[in-house]
Amino acid sequence: MLPTDLLCFIETSISKHVNIPVKVLNVRKLHGGSVNFSYQLNTSQGSFFIKINKREHFPLMFEKEIDGLNQISPFFPVPKVFCKGEFSEYSFLLLEFIETETANKNHWETFGEKLAKMHQNSSKLFGYKEDNYNGSLLQVNSKTNLWSDFFVQNRLMIQCKMARDKQLIDNNFVTQFEKLYPKISNLFPQEKPSLLHGDLWSGNYIISHSSTPFLIDPAVYYGHREVDIAMTLLFGGFNKQLYESYEAYYPLERGWQQRVDIANIYPLMVHVNLFGASYAQRVKSVIKHLV
Amino acid sequence: MLPTDLLCFIETSISKHVNIPVKVLNVRKLHGGSVNFSYQLNTSQGSFFIKINKREHFPLMFEKEIDGLNQISPFFPVPKVFCKGEFSEYSFLLLEFIETETANKNHWETFGEKLAKMHQNSSKLFGYKEDNYNGSLLQVNSKTNLWSDFFVQNRLMIQCKMARDKQLIDNNFVTQFEKLYPKISNLFPQEKPSLLHGDLWSGNYIISHSSTPFLIDPAVYYGHREVDIAMTLLFGGFNKQLYESYEAYYPLERGWQQRVDIANIYPLMVHVNLFGASYAQRVKSVIKHLV
Repeated sequence: MLPTDLLCFIETSISKHVNIPVKVLNVRKLHGGSVNFSYQLNTSQGSFFIKINKREHFPLMFEKEIDGLNQISPFFPVPKVFCKGEFSEYSFLLLEFIETETANKNHWETFGEKLAKMHQNSSKLFGYKEDNYNGSLLQVNSKTNLWSDFFVQNRLMIQCKMARDKQLIDNNFVTQFEKLYPKISNLFPQEKPSLLHGDLWSGNYIISHSSTPFLIDPAVYYGHREVDIAMTLLFGGFNKQLYESYEAYYPLERGWQQRVDIANIYPLMVHVNLFGASYAQRVKSVIKHLV
Repeated sequence: MLPTDLLCFIETSISKHVNIPVKVLNVRKLHGGSVNFSYQLNTSQGSFFIKINKREHFPLMFEKEIDGLNQISPFFPVPKVFCKGEFSEYSFLLLEFIETETANKNHWETFGEKLAKMHQNSSKLFGYKEDNYNGSLLQVNSKTNLWSDFFVQNRLMIQCKMARDKQLIDNNFVTQFEKLYPKISNLFPQEKPSLLHGDLWSGNYIISHSSTPFLIDPAVYYGHREVDIAMTLLFGGFNKQLYESYEAYYPLERGWQQRVDIANIYPLMVHVNLFGASYAQRVKSVIKHLV
């Protein structure tokens, strides 16, 4: 499936990286997200996971992904980064291939503990040293003192503007949506900034054959940790043992369950902008109770 | 993630179908293809797999999928179809949710045997009673007496025209591509039509927890069985034990390995039309040796 000349270039890149000649024996296409093509490369030196994209589409996307993985890795296992490269019109990112198994009770307990400890990693300000991507959308991470300022300016306002520019929402929606902004500061309890995965849906964790939970596809920044927790509930697939274990290490503020829908307005608006206006209905029904 | 009113309608549909009130407890988004959104619905009556689409995008797509699953099911396990429905701007298809495991030697042997037996199911003519979809592209299945006529008229010519209309290939490519048509009849050995899965890449089989291989996402028609076999090699992920087992039940004609690239011109051209011009390079390098 991969163009032959690209495959040759990848073989050379891996060979240089591992310092042994590597031959690709088999390429297995994997179901992937909407942004990249993903493949399992079975080589003479074991399996690798490779993501491929057209280089002009999302500049620096793989650089941002590597940075996010590095940021998380002291606190939570992530796949090893082997190398990234560019060839002809393609860019690629070569990662450790992780054979997976289904999560059980023990995995969820470990997951909760590690996530709590990752969230305890803090920073002076909300935001991040650079902008990055959430899926294929640019994610702005300008630093602020207050979480509510960060959430309104870098998350809600930007997504709202994008949806309006794309004519996915009408003026009435915008008016309602903007009424939300002044209310945010009273909704979330004040907490110090937490290192977040940033896109913690059930497709973005894996359990390895050696029973370790791994995080993948990060969209990291320092934010309110309830955002990561809320995201686990938006698409399901996380077990209640995760929350029990998490709370044992870093208890959530009372009433966090009532803030889940608010925190999830951001990923819902990302869905509006990536996948179409029909998701705006869901946002409308969330903000109806708030404004 | 699913709009609340759609979720209510789905609950009602499932309840009617199983004749017991069903409550959706949890919705887990799944990585999916490029066409539909897919979710695991965990309900008070167990898990279901649901695909959702905007109804106007791909008319009759789910009807065609159900027909394909029904066509295959006497020969090869497929997920049970529970119901399909339409609500507001959405259409959905509710299928059995199958917990999966990783394939091992025994699975590949069963897979090979079942695939061979499915391919032994024949029909008078190449083609199918109706057109259907390959991914999101319409797949024309007009009946013919000869495989070479079918492959040229319903597969190569249609994909070539589509790619040219979309300006993904240039006139020089078209000229080279058309030189292939008269050569097809001498390339494939004559065989009777076989019931094909039609899109047999590694994302379209699953191994259930009860160790049964299942086929999903069919694009069925009666065609040359080397097309299904070739497709398993285009993206990898199938073990060599599959081919050994297959050949024990329905030996392939000599030299089939040399015809793999030719059979795969169709899925490669589908990739050109779905995912862009860069895939045309791969097609060029295949036809270079033939014309």
